[in-house]
Amino acid sequence: MHDASSTARADQSNAGALVQLQRDARGVFTLNLNDPARFNALGSSMLAALQAAIDTVAADATARVLVLAAQGRAFCAGHDLKEMAADGSLASHQALFARCSRMMLSLQKLPVPVIAQVQGMATAAGCQLVAQCDLAVASEAASFATSGIRYGLFCATPSVPLVRNVPIKKAMEMLLTGDFIDAATALDQGLVNRVVAPEALADAVEALVLSILDKPRTAVAMGKALVYQQRELGIEAAYQLAGQTMAVNMQDADAREGVDAFVQKRQPGWRAGA
Amino acid sequence: MHDASSTARADQSNAGALVQLQRDARGVFTLNLNDPARFNALGSSMLAALQAAIDTVAADATARVLVLAAQGRAFCAGHDLKEMAADGSLASHQALFARCSRMMLSLQKLPVPVIAQVQGMATAAGCQLVAQCDLAVASEAASFATSGIRYGLFCATPSVPLVRNVPIKKAMEMLLTGDFIDAATALDQGLVNRVVAPEALADAVEALVLSILDKPRTAVAMGKALVYQQRELGIEAAYQLAGQTMAVNMQDADAREGVDAFVQKRQPGWRAGA
Amino acid sequence: MHDASSTARADQSNAGALVQLQRDARGVFTLNLNDPARFNALGSSMLAALQAAIDTVAADATARVLVLAAQGRAFCAGHDLKEMAADGSLASHQALFARCSRMMLSLQKLPVPVIAQVQGMATAAGCQLVAQCDLAVASEAASFATSGIRYGLFCATPSVPLVRNVPIKKAMEMLLTGDFIDAATALDQGLVNRVVAPEALADAVEALVLSILDKPRTAVAMGKALVYQQRELGIEAAYQLAGQTMAVNMQDADAREGVDAFVQKRQPGWRAGA
Repeated sequence: MHDASSTARADQSNAGALVQLQRDARGVFTLNLNDPARFNALGSSMLAALQAAIDTVAADATARVLVLAAQGRAFCAGHDLKEMAADGSLASHQALFARCSRMMLSLQKLPVPVIAQVQGMATAAGCQLVAQCDLAVASEAASFATSGIRYGLFCATPSVPLVRNVPIKKAMEMLLTGDFIDAATALDQGLVNRVVAPEALADAVEALVLSILDKPRTAVAMGKALVYQQRELGIEAAYQLAGQTMAVNMQDADAREGVDAFVQKRQPGWRAGA
Repeated sequence: MHDASSTARADQSNAGALVQLQRDARGVFTLNLNDPARFNALGSSMLAALQAAIDTVAADATARVLVLAAQGRAFCAGHDLKEMAADGSLASHQALFARCSRMMLSLQKLPVPVIAQVQGMATAAGCQLVAQCDLAVASEAASFATSGIRYGLFCATPSVPLVRNVPIKKAMEMLLTGDFIDAATALDQGLVNRVVAPEALADAVEALVLSILDKPRTAVAMGKALVYQQRELGIEAAYQLAGQTMAVNMQDADAREGVDAFVQKRQPGWRAGA
Repeated sequence: MHDASSTARADQSNAGALVQLQRDARGVFTLNLNDPARFNALGSSMLAALQAAIDTVAADATARVLVLAAQGRAFCAGHDLKEMAADGSLASHQALFARCSRMMLSLQKLPVPVIAQVQGMATAAGCQLVAQCDLAVASEAASFATSGIRYGLFCATPSVPLVRNVPIKKAMEMLLTGDFIDAATALDQGLVNRVVAPEALADAVEALVLSILDKPRTAVAMGKALVYQQRELGIEAAYQLAGQTMAVNMQDADAREGVDAFVQKRQPGWRAGA
């Protein structure tokens, strides 16, 4: 679907696609949700397109970072309720949430950092997307809600990354009321890393991208995986796993170069494509 | 003890009871700690009265929310040290803390949200009560401490919900020093959801109550239980459980109505008593 | 190495040692990292000296608190990269991180509270040290970074206490960018308990020390251990453990005295050396 081996900055998707996946020469992927008329709702087709795009990034051994952005006024409005109403069987909804959860977990499993670039409303599974990303930058115009409860459908799957991002009482308040929080509150509660003016959003994301590009790919991949793994363990097991990870990391050529460069007081020269 | 089937707003308790449990026509229970002379301390009788009141709410299939409030200057001063000193046996203290922990967990297990309405000092197991509730609104006059350590008795059971509400270093500071934090600090640290002027406290709680009443009971009950369950799991198991919960939630008549109403751009009409 | 039985305030270490461990008459230990020329880097010798000092505190039955401070401009710069580069074998790095993790866990296992007194930069495993302490007071001049990724070595072991101190997205940002946060941000994110002017640092630490000295040793030891144990459990098991801890705590003579004193409205008189 996408030409992951391309290194030229070019839109690999046709303009009418539900998502647009771009890869630049640096290995920076930008995944744009591109269904603004439906507020980028996560219908079956959108979910499939997202999963395919994430799989493309996962398959690209020289990918460095994924930016998850969106077209239009909304970042993402969550599930497509119209589609869910059309097929009301338990089996179809089980399958839908299983596919959606698999997509969300794919973001965590990617070896590259994922940055949400949130320009507008992120509701229900759209808020979940932001919570599930490794980093998030929001425009002052962004807002966040786990609003399913307003339609009688508690945001159960969104609560999974939400309670792993924000304090429990704030999470419960969002989940029980469905009320929006603004970008400043999202920052204060730990849901996003930065809030900037709308016109500064792309630059703020690019600053994080540049910082990540400045680091070796292998160490970033090992580290991202480790953080999520060790977080679920008791602290003794966590230290055991982290110590092994660091020792193995030190065997990597880039870490050796980095440490040598530090000792020799010079800039490190990472391997090409590292 | 309380007439849970009553739908008229009326005090079901006699005025001299340790707790007063009221239920209004909407299914909103208000549980008032009513021993201001002893700062609403959790002696054996108070614990038994609290447990009975919570059990009454649990048994009421049309309950919608529980507000936990208190009479007097203190919200709750924690355990009754005088009573604890009177019977110093290990067995009696084991039984006391087991009863208290059961009562605290009953709040989490209730199918309806529990809102702490904190008008004054909440110390030791009183602070624990606030931490254990799903939501909390505090007066600017409220203050919070895990002060047992001042009497040589580390607030071990209060630490259980405390470390699940506030960052670990702040929790350790409260537990080791026994110092009070004011309401603004409690808000900043995640222990409460709102801080308002004393005269605005009841209205601020009522606003949350109204928001919860506006949502279907079944979805709220499924959601509340799910949040606490999934929080203790690894993220993959959490998603598995949450996805199943959401699929089952969608089978509920109110969720179908809510989703239909959304699709048809109209207000949902929940089932009576939902 | 150190005379733990000494009760006079005196420097038990020779002036040129990598760490200086002092114990005053109150049982307050101050462990000073004393290799300012190497920014108190955690080379093998420094790790061994730290472990020995912590073991000395652990072996002192009348120790009451450990203050972890540092000489020079940096609090601690993390591992000694020069030494790590000199022996690049996997086995040597595995052993290094195992020793370092053991030292870090020793701080958590100490029966007395550990307070980090952070006067300057705390980077990589130096930032980990702060995160691993029970409490931390920082000078306005302090700064914090998990900067290993700048040298191609992801701060895996520092991430263990970091994600247990600060929200996940902020932790990921620090780990992926290696950027510094200032003391005010560290306070806001939960990494430290207090930020004060440089000249007020020692007094702010002493205030916490005095508060801890005012509490019985046994209750503090039981409580500290309980908090970290119960935090890793599901909430039902956590309550079970906490309730037993509190019941046993009540069997301690100091708790009985504290509770009696409360009931009799007088100051408690703890046992000598308690």
